[in-house]
Amino acid sequence: MDHAGRLSRLRSALGENDLDSLLVTHLPNIHYLCGFTGSAAALLVADRGAVLFTDGRYIAQAKEEVKGARIVIARKSPLVAAVEWVVTEYGTSTAVGIEPEAITAGMRDRIASVLKGKARLRPAPPLVERARLVKDAAEIVRIRRAVELGASLFQIARKKIRPGVTEVEVAAAMEYEARRAGAEGMSFPTILASGTRSAIVHGRASGARISRRGFVVCDFGVILAGYCSDRTRTVHVGQPSAEARRLYEAVREAQQEAISAVRPGATAAEVDGAARRVLRKRKLARYFTHSTGHGLGLEIHEAPRLAKGQTQKLEPGMVITIEPGAYVPGKWGVRIEDVVVVTPSGCEVLTPTDKELVII
Amino acid sequence: MDHAGRLSRLRSALGENDLDSLLVTHLPNIHYLCGFTGSAAALLVADRGAVLFTDGRYIAQAKEEVKGARIVIARKSPLVAAVEWVVTEYGTSTAVGIEPEAITAGMRDRIASVLKGKARLRPAPPLVERARLVKDAAEIVRIRRAVELGASLFQIARKKIRPGVTEVEVAAAMEYEARRAGAEGMSFPTILASGTRSAIVHGRASGARISRRGFVVCDFGVILAGYCSDRTRTVHVGQPSAEARRLYEAVREAQQEAISAVRPGATAAEVDGAARRVLRKRKLARYFTHSTGHGLGLEIHEAPRLAKGQTQKLEPGMVITIEPGAYVPGKWGVRIEDVVVVTPSGCEVLTPTDKELVII
Repeated sequence: MDHAGRLSRLRSALGENDLDSLLVTHLPNIHYLCGFTGSAAALLVADRGAVLFTDGRYIAQAKEEVKGARIVIARKSPLVAAVEWVVTEYGTSTAVGIEPEAITAGMRDRIASVLKGKARLRPAPPLVERARLVKDAAEIVRIRRAVELGASLFQIARKKIRPGVTEVEVAAAMEYEARRAGAEGMSFPTILASGTRSAIVHGRASGARISRRGFVVCDFGVILAGYCSDRTRTVHVGQPSAEARRLYEAVREAQQEAISAVRPGATAAEVDGAARRVLRKRKLARYFTHSTGHGLGLEIHEAPRLAKGQTQKLEPGMVITIEPGAYVPGKWGVRIEDVVVVTPSGCEVLTPTDKELVII
Repeated sequence: MDHAGRLSRLRSALGENDLDSLLVTHLPNIHYLCGFTGSAAALLVADRGAVLFTDGRYIAQAKEEVKGARIVIARKSPLVAAVEWVVTEYGTSTAVGIEPEAITAGMRDRIASVLKGKARLRPAPPLVERARLVKDAAEIVRIRRAVELGASLFQIARKKIRPGVTEVEVAAAMEYEARRAGAEGMSFPTILASGTRSAIVHGRASGARISRRGFVVCDFGVILAGYCSDRTRTVHVGQPSAEARRLYEAVREAQQEAISAVRPGATAAEVDGAARRVLRKRKLARYFTHSTGHGLGLEIHEAPRLAKGQTQKLEPGMVITIEPGAYVPGKWGVRIEDVVVVTPSGCEVLTPTDKELVII
């Protein structure tokens, strides 16, 4: 990974934002910038270089992982240590950017009291998140591998889903296979929602038994070498009614239209609108209660958000999910999701693309 | 669960802290107070009652889970909706407590700008965390079940740990069994650290193969019905040297001494000191680089922290881990951990207690 380049580009961005340094506290941003994956850290990026502050639990791990930054093992909170260090190194008139969405109000108060009006703390714009929007080639290689491993788990689901089996047994088998194949873990709690539970958008696998007839929404992803995958397929147990087929086909068409709308220059809102338009025509718009998708990478949910009003323009190298759905409360639900990467001419669907309704 | 009692006691505490209401944003606190387990919520607790704000994804789930609070589905951020609601219901001179460690600096700025100097936002003391320190009978039943399920996974580890097997294969088998037995998930990434990796305190299961001879630290826990378990056992593959046996026995004695120090009125620091004293006598103090334990319940790490300087007095109903260890960098490490509940006369070890060195 190009940690040196990432740090150097961030340093340039600091100048443009009138900051002498940035105190990075969002752990995925720290991972992105210098490779460290521990759970306690602050990364100070300034013109003279970058310094990672962590604690005694991570001495060996920091030495192994960190690239492009010096390592300081703090005896107290890494963040407080970083702030004290800034004042020592850069004096009292320096402007330190903080990440306002990745620092608690209490912690900001504490470091402000450490500073006693010395260095100035300033909420910084999301500089690292902006850099992370467009993935580089090495990241896309990793995402592709995560997506491929994630996608393969659907074969386990197809085999395991049977009337009478609990949702959680299916999820457990998928998660076991993911681990055996080298995943660090799942990128979010596996959703396996059968029967009327398929209408629950976030229907985590439960002890409910799969019934003889109905949809099963399977939404799952892995973390592999730090990068997330995300995929949803909806299968039908037993013969689907004509109405069930119509619902499935409407969501499938909405998803296809949204994928077709992905190209450089299109806004996130336009892609969302493309999916919504199809469902509106089918009088299903009110059952599509979430956004069409989201960026993914080191985190399962990153910018951009594909929703109404989102003006972010797509660029080659952005990696997003396309996942419209329709949920009729108390009855049933369908969602279909793929991961796509924006290319110069449109997009490439990374998830294997078969989306015929699977009948079990 | 006694949600009504919890909410009522919190309302009494508000008055004692000169607050008209508390805006609860720490999700485990929301879970504790009203039962809601969704990932987006704010709970406003005031004298006239409690109101849970969440978003459209959680309509069905909120209806099913929430006890003792009204439900409002917000179109925008649940937190912003809650703040607007406070001003409408309680007027402009009300004092609203916030949880400073569970709200980002950016979010506090945003809600302050919504309020425009109307209601006063005040950092509240950790009122809900204080209530959660002492578990009630229903919670202890759940923790006991989680600890029993968690502990049973060690049998899987014993069977799977063999020279040549990867750490992650062992972890995967344990996690699979946990899921099949009904766990919602693991309470933290499974630690399975073999050979020289046993010296890494947070050695997550990796692709490393277990060698013919050496320690394997197994630290793992489940979440069952919302409550966490945590257990560490260290086994030895192949015949241990006399030095390895001495290290193991020293940690085991340190752990036993710490358990013996647990009683109502003892401070968290005293329990930590009891473990440290044993290791100091064995000239191992410098290899014990973390605290002796932590509270657990809805979260894997809760108050109290069993460490130097911690003045928190133990009380019956507190549930804590006792987990000293010793880690010689580049060589090996040992940790032994149980969950104990403080009783009127001392403590009860919830984890099955066999701690003879297991040789595989």
